[in-house]
This record gives sequence, structure tokens and C-alpha cells, in this order.
Amino acid sequence: MTIDRTSLRWNGWGPAAQPDALPKESPAWQWIADALGINTPLPETPATPLEKCTLPASGLDGETRLELERIVGANQVHTGDYERAFHARGKSYHDLLHVRAGNLSNAPDAVVYPRSEDETQRLVEFAAARDIVLVPFGGGSSVVGGVTGREQGEKRLCITVDTTLMTSLLSIDETAMTATAQAGIYGPALDKALASQGVRLGHYPQSFEYSTLGGWVAARGAGQNSIRYGRADKWLVSAHVATPSGLWRTEATPGSAAAPNLNQMVAGSEGTLGIITEATFKVHSLPDAEDYRGYLFRSFAEGADAIRRIVQSEIPTAMLRLSDADETFFFRTLGGIGKEHGLKDNLAEAYLRLRGYADRPCALIVGLEGSAANVSHARDRVARIMSACGGLHVGRSPGTSWKAGRFHGPMVRDPMMDHGLGVDTLETSTFWSNIQTLHSAVREAIDTSIRETLDDPSARGIVMAHISHAYPDGASLYFTFVFPRRLDRGLEGEVAQWLTIKRAASDAIAAHNGTISHHHGVGTDHAPWLGQEKGPVGMQMLGAVKQSLDPKGVMNPGKVLGDGIGN
Amino acid sequence: MTIDRTSLRWNGWGPAAQPDALPKESPAWQWIADALGINTPLPETPATPLEKCTLPASGLDGETRLELERIVGANQVHTGDYERAFHARGKSYHDLLHVRAGNLSNAPDAVVYPRSEDETQRLVEFAAARDIVLVPFGGGSSVVGGVTGREQGEKRLCITVDTTLMTSLLSIDETAMTATAQAGIYGPALDKALASQGVRLGHYPQSFEYSTLGGWVAARGAGQNSIRYGRADKWLVSAHVATPSGLWRTEATPGSAAAPNLNQMVAGSEGTLGIITEATFKVHSLPDAEDYRGYLFRSFAEGADAIRRIVQSEIPTAMLRLSDADETFFFRTLGGIGKEHGLKDNLAEAYLRLRGYADRPCALIVGLEGSAANVSHARDRVARIMSACGGLHVGRSPGTSWKAGRFHGPMVRDPMMDHGLGVDTLETSTFWSNIQTLHSAVREAIDTSIRETLDDPSARGIVMAHISHAYPDGASLYFTFVFPRRLDRGLEGEVAQWLTIKRAASDAIAAHNGTISHHHGVGTDHAPWLGQEKGPVGMQMLGAVKQSLDPKGVMNPGKVLGDGIGN
Repeated sequence: MTIDRTSLRWNGWGPAAQPDALPKESPAWQWIADALGINTPLPETPATPLEKCTLPASGLDGETRLELERIVGANQVHTGDYERAFHARGKSYHDLLHVRAGNLSNAPDAVVYPRSEDETQRLVEFAAARDIVLVPFGGGSSVVGGVTGREQGEKRLCITVDTTLMTSLLSIDETAMTATAQAGIYGPALDKALASQGVRLGHYPQSFEYSTLGGWVAARGAGQNSIRYGRADKWLVSAHVATPSGLWRTEATPGSAAAPNLNQMVAGSEGTLGIITEATFKVHSLPDAEDYRGYLFRSFAEGADAIRRIVQSEIPTAMLRLSDADETFFFRTLGGIGKEHGLKDNLAEAYLRLRGYADRPCALIVGLEGSAANVSHARDRVARIMSACGGLHVGRSPGTSWKAGRFHGPMVRDPMMDHGLGVDTLETSTFWSNIQTLHSAVREAIDTSIRETLDDPSARGIVMAHISHAYPDGASLYFTFVFPRRLDRGLEGEVAQWLTIKRAASDAIAAHNGTISHHHGVGTDHAPWLGQEKGPVGMQMLGAVKQSLDPKGVMNPGKVLGDGIGN
Repeated sequence: MTIDRTSLRWNGWGPAAQPDALPKESPAWQWIADALGINTPLPETPATPLEKCTLPASGLDGETRLELERIVGANQVHTGDYERAFHARGKSYHDLLHVRAGNLSNAPDAVVYPRSEDETQRLVEFAAARDIVLVPFGGGSSVVGGVTGREQGEKRLCITVDTTLMTSLLSIDETAMTATAQAGIYGPALDKALASQGVRLGHYPQSFEYSTLGGWVAARGAGQNSIRYGRADKWLVSAHVATPSGLWRTEATPGSAAAPNLNQMVAGSEGTLGIITEATFKVHSLPDAEDYRGYLFRSFAEGADAIRRIVQSEIPTAMLRLSDADETFFFRTLGGIGKEHGLKDNLAEAYLRLRGYADRPCALIVGLEGSAANVSHARDRVARIMSACGGLHVGRSPGTSWKAGRFHGPMVRDPMMDHGLGVDTLETSTFWSNIQTLHSAVREAIDTSIRETLDDPSARGIVMAHISHAYPDGASLYFTFVFPRRLDRGLEGEVAQWLTIKRAASDAIAAHNGTISHHHGVGTDHAPWLGQEKGPVGMQMLGAVKQSLDPKGVMNPGKVLGDGIGN
């Protein structure tokens, strides 16, 4: 069930062979250029092909290689260029800047693929005994520097441990509605194996197709339907983690007062304590009914209020997603470009104008899943609250089309980067009472900092946001921004540009009481802001746990507790 | 809002002045004696009055007292007998054996009442600097040895820190539906303060009237309506904890991937890392509608299946409580004793017999709370599942009367102990697929071990159980057992009897994959079984956290990580 690495883009998102998500002849390019205030033709900025990249020599000596092969088997120790390049970094904009420029200085010395929990545990103990750095790697979809191979200044041997040979669904408990699987299984394979038994986990992050169960837990992620199925820290029942202090099997009980729940120390550990080898998680019956549909709101505040009231009313929804006016405008315009504008569209426009939804509306998509009785109960109650909050029902098609394209977002980044454009995303969450303030502050910080990085006074960024995860006490905010890349100063200049924007956004998040990450994790990129969120005692605690389980610091060093942004 | 300590029983449950929950003339005594196979009149075994108890001399020297008074004020440092006796132990059967026998060797040297977070933090730092032991104490309702003063062999000065002068509701965020209160506020005071603003926390443990917010969090407890309102580890948003390493303000965001959620290290810490000074928690609107009613099932398995199907169907309930046949029989019989058995009762009996529910039925109470729409939706769906699982609807009165007496259970223990009877409770949880196995194993272990402690071969215990907290993946099991006390060997013999039963039950729980506690906590009494549940790596982690935050081990030593059962 594992995805062959050579079938994937080593320096981008998705399959190596894929249709161009934004073909060269698309009129969208001109519209984007105009929106960014770019008056010259967009440049061609293709990625450096692997054969033109220079990899640092692998430091793996013959003896260590033999010992590794004794643990994981002769065919599971790789030092070839493709494997090392593929595992050099994750998939953040910052990662892509480096690998597209041909900078593979972070490539690990070797990549090993353990085939079992036992091999993984032996590998971790071997590494700890020899002071060899291990970087756990599932799908490698981290966008926060969580899987970067060799950190700057690291002198030790660095080995990336790819978990994707461990892909078995081990068991399903149909009475308790839990399942246990090996950590390296990819999203679609897990979903398929579970569905054949009539159940699902329901964890659908945007990276679903290219990320693994172990990664979801390690990064404490959240799927798009988290309202129904829960975040990873909620659906995780128990885990096995191969640590330098031995195999850690966490407690497994439905509810307990037996000291703190240590499963919560696995979720968010990001490979810094050990390698997750298997996880037990809650499953749900496949839904009998689904209902996805769209609403328009006159303002972001009104739409947010509708979401708040729905979740606080304990109505069983699966997904509530509200785009701000900029995001709504961006996707409606981009979606409409090149299509003929007919009578039906004109009538729809006129209707929206008449109802007062034509001026910067905000689109909200609501998804319901579950038993027919729950979905029908929820549909009626949702409709009433939407209407009370000023929402205009616009039918099922926005819901259906969002769902059809739910994993496609990252596909447009590569073509944009091929044309001198930068695209990045970042996310946070806060309490409902602070959501508008945080939205404005971060939006403003990104917008202003993008302008600061550009010489041309007419050039600017496109900054947009949505709420995509709602809780009774608050919600996430997810920002996407597009900007003209600062190409004139080479890789260093581009990294500096990104750092300026990233730091401004992160500072704004921290200053306005958002979390530094709602579901991407910490990695290297958010580490400098973690202390502000956890406080000195919290950081001391995290440090003590790390020191105890991994005293030599061989497990994913520099992540979470480091200060390695821009590494 | 604090409860005056002298208005409470220092060596029992509830108010000092209270109506006898089981008057001497009640025919229930004879029925209980018969059920226990006791052929002699029940003995009189009154508790030792305080004036006949000998307290160890307080080791608090004048200089230290002055320094304490400088921190918390002159009137807040107590060394009088009543205060020291009141704070000697918690409220477990084992605690009561000691204090009723006049053994107050565990009394702390002094009791201090800090009035603010700042005072508490200074107190903790003072204690850490001077190597003085601190025992945090809220309501003191621990039934697992969580608030025992001086541990056996402890040579250091021991001071109990009573938090119940810190009782303010600090703020309510009506948009985010969260509230923040000081940790020492008692259940009813908090409930009232919140209700005056139209909201509730909804945490109703049986100890509700005599326990505090901080204690609920520290012990990682669960209230009777936990299905709707959540366990403490679920409703806790953030906390302040006065630790020897400084004031720990945990992170506060609705959903986050910023490293592990350290609020989960507060829940279940039981005062071993510091003293919780305030907590922010989720609140709900006061319910528009409530619906409590009863069902009968022909077997425990059928009733459990109904609960499982209801929670797995995501129907919004507040409470589902299923008594096994023994518990159902016990309470129905006890409730009927002394009442005239009229025509109505005879008809009801005949009806039950006709329908096949007369032979050892199991009673189930379901409680619904929330918006009228949710309650009505849930009522219909619950009724359908109950019926499909073989449940017989028996009306609202079992629900109403359970609710009216929901906090009264512990009131009957003191009169029973006055008559030579032991009563204890213990609890666990497991996955649905294991619930019947665990129920039988623990039931059997308690029953057998009680018989082992008794010389008279006809003497035996009454052992009964219920499910009172349900999750999609499993449920709690709560055991209550009554037994003839082994009075012939003094306090030591009685403690030995209790230890025999407690160890047998705990071993059975651990051997059959239950958690050692679902909501009572670890304290001293469950500590020996914690390692089996957490595993060596988990225990190492807990030890490392403790060592880092409290290197001198002044915070509640011997609890959670100790091995002090029977201390």
C-alpha cells in the first residue's frame, strides 16, 4: 500500500506526473499578476532538476551501514541521490525554496525503512548508543520544518527513518469502535482498509493523500471534518513509540483518572521523543447520510457568529468553513475566469445584489455526516441558525464542489512557484471573543510585511483567510497568501523575504493570544514562539521529558524545542 | 462562600449536624445483617471523639510560624487540634478506619490558608527553599489517600495548604462560553455563581457538595453528567499552578498543535507538581429542558449494549447509568423496606413478572439535558434503542428520585461504620468489548476476598456495581461493597482486612485491562498499580516531570508516584 517514492515529486506536491493545475495559457495568470500589482510579464522560475543538484557526500561508513542492514535488512538502507533528496526536507514554502534552488545541504546521510516495530525499536536504541541522529519521516508533508534532515551545524551522522513500510491495519474492535494500525500507513490506504470493514477514522487533512497515521498523531493534526471526528489528540486512544528509553506502550482506557493521560504527550511530540510505530484510534460507522451545502454572509463576523451558535448549540455537524471576503472573492473570481458569463450568472448576480450579498460576501460551507436521523435533525437546526444570523442559502453545489477539490489546494503551489510567485499558508486558533481581532491583526501583519519586502510600491500580496475548525470555545483561522517573490537576491534573499513575512505573522499571532499552530505543528519554524505560549514552567517540563527519554538528543533534534526557524 | 470547617464532620461525611441517614430503629439493619450472613446483633462501633484522640505534637517552630504568617497572614496559620485532625486524612474507608479509631498520626504540623495566588506561590517557594512538605487540600474528599498529611517515615515539617479561602468566580466569557474561577471554590458555590449568569459547568461528582474546582482538576475527576459536560480533563481550558519552579500558567487556546497540551499534565497531577490556584473551564447555557427516566433490562449485558448503542449513535445524552442485578435488587429492596406493599405494587410486580423482568432485573436511568430541540430529538432516539435492546420503560420517577438523591450515597457510610459494617467503593473503566469480563472478574475478586477475611463461613459481603460514565469506546464500572468488619484484631486487623480486599480488586482490574481509577484518582492507594498501566517509559516520564518541577519532592510526596497503599 506504500507509495513508491519515485512516483512522487521529490521537490513539490503530489505525483511526479500530474496535469498542470494552472496551465501556462490560463487567463488566471494575468488576473493574479494584476491583483499583485505586477506590471511586467511573470518570470519563468523552474525548479532545479535533481541531476543538476549537488548533494553533500553521505557520511555513512561501511561498518555502520552493515550494522544498520543487520537491523532493517540489506535493501532498506539507502544512500542514493533520489532517496536522500526526497528526504532532505518537508513541503513548506521555505523547504521548496531550498530544494527548488538545488540546495540539498540538509539531506540526511542515509534513509532507512524499518519493516516492523521491533526493527524500529532496535534502530532507535542503536542510534542512541552510537549518538546518531534520527529523523522520523512518514509522508514528509510537514510544512513547519518538522522532517528536515541535517540541522545547520549538526556534526553527527543523520539518518532519516521512513516509516512507510509499516502499513498494516492490525485490528478492528467493532464493539468498542476502535482500530489499530501501523504508523506508516498513508491516508487513502487506511481509509480504504477501514471502509472495507464499514468504518472510518474520518481524519481528512488537506495532506490526506500524502501523509500517514503516525504523522497525524506526531503533529497533533486536525482533519477538515474535525468537528465530527475529532483532532488527532481526541481520536488517539493509545500508541506505541520506539524511544531511546525503550518501547513506550501508552495506557489504553476509555476514561481514566490514573495520573495525567500520557497519550497527550505523544500527540504533538513530533518525533522528538521517539518514533510512533502504531496507533489505536476511534472509528465511526460509515455515515448513512451526508449533506454539504453553501451559504453567503454579508460579513465575516456574521458568518463566524453563525458557526459559533451552531457548535455551542451542540448540533452534530461534521464541518463548518467560512471564507473571509478576500478568500471568497479570490476563489469565485478564479473559478469564473475563462468561463462564459451567461444569463443565469447575470440573474444570480442581480439576485445577490438585491438581497445585499453582492458587496464582498463571505462564503460558508456546512457539512453534515452521520445517521440519517442526526443529519436531518442537524439540517433543520443549522438552517434556522444560518437564517437568524443573516446567512443566505445558496444550495448544494458549493458544498459538493468544495468536497470534490478538498485535497487539491497544494497542487497550485508548484506552478505558481514556477512563475515567480510565492504562496504560503499559516494557521492559528483563538477563543470566539477574540476571533475578529486576531483575524484583522494577522491579516494586517502579513499584508504589511509583504509590501515591506517589495521594492515596487505598487506591488502587494493577496491575503485571505478562513475558519475551518470550530469548537464550542473558539475556532481556527487559516491564512493563505500569495506574493511576488524577491528573485533578485538569490536563495538567501528569498529566504529573508519569507522570514520577514513569517516572523511578522507569528509575532502578530503571539501578541494577540492565538496559538502558534492550530494543526501544522511546531517543527523548526514555530519553535521560537512556543515559549511565549507554554510559559517558562511549561518549557521546562517539555525539556525535562525530552532529556529523560532522549538524553543524547538523537531524536529529531532542533524540532519543537529548538530555535531553528530558517534552518 | 467557604464552608466553615467546624460545621463539617472531621471524621466522616457531610455536615456535623445531619439527620441519621439510617436510623437505629430502621428494619434495614436486620435485612443487611441477613444479607451479610451475620447471625448476631450488629455491634455498636462508634467513632472516637476528638477530645479522646491524641495528636502528635506539632513540629512547627516559632520562627517558621512567623515566616508563614508573613506570607499568608497571622490568622491563616493553624496548629489547633480541630484543624490538624480535620486535615489529617481524606474520606476513604481506609482513612475513616484510622481517624475513627483515634489514630491521627498523619496529622500535618500545621494548616495554612493562603488567600491569593500570590500568597500560594510564595508559600510554595518558601517550602521548597526550606524543604518543608506541602499537602494541597481543597474539600479533602479524596477517597484514595490523596490528601493524607504526614506520610509514614516523613521526617520533614508537613504543612497542609487549604485552598478554600480562594473562592472567587473571576470572569465569564459569554461569547467563548468559558469561565475562570479560583481553585478553592466549592461545587455548590460555583454552581450558584455561574447560574446567576445563566451558565453551568455541569460537573456533578457524588462529592459535589464537599469538593472544589481545584480538586476536580487535580484528581482528573468526572461528574455524573460527564457524557454531556465532559470529564475534568475535557472541560479544563487552562490553569494556574503554583509550583516550586514558579507560577505555571498553562497555554489557553481552543485547539492547538503547538507541542503536547500541557493542560493534560495538570489534570491528574494531584498536587504533586504544585497547587492549582485557578482554572478556566468550559461552560454551557442552563438547559432549557431536562428529561430523566428509568428502564429495566433483563440482564446487565443487554443494558450495557443499549448504552453503547446510544453513545455510539451520537445521541446527545447527559447521563446513562446502569445498575447490575445485585445493585438493582439492593436499592429496590432497601427502598421498599418498612413501606406498606399495596395493590399498586402487587400489580406492578405481576406486570414485571409477566413481561419477564421480575428475575434479577437491571435498572437503567437516562438523563437528557439541553435545548428543547436536542432533548426531544434524543428522547425519541433513546426510546427506540432502549426498546430494541430489550429495555422496559418504567417512567420518570426512578429518574427523578435518583436525581434528588444523587449526592446522598456517602451519607450512609458513617452509620454503617457505627454498626460494625465496612463500606467501600472502587471504580475502573474499560472498552465495551471487555466490560462484561471486567465486571465479572472484579465482582468475583471482591466477593472472594471479603469471604477470605472472615472467620465465619456463613458471613459474606454484598457486592454490586453500575456503569455511570459512557464513552463511544467504553464505560466506567463502579463497585460498592458492604462487609462485616473484622473487629477482633484492632485497627491493624481492620486495615489488613481492607488491604486484602483492595489488593484483590486492584489486581483483578490490572489483570483484566481496566484502568486503576476512572475518576477517584491515584493518591497513595492506587499508586502500586500505576506502573502496570503506564509502563516503564510512562513512569519514567512522570518521574522526570516531578523531578524537574519539584526537585526536593516537597509537593504532596508519596502520592501518585509513591507506593504507599495502607499508609
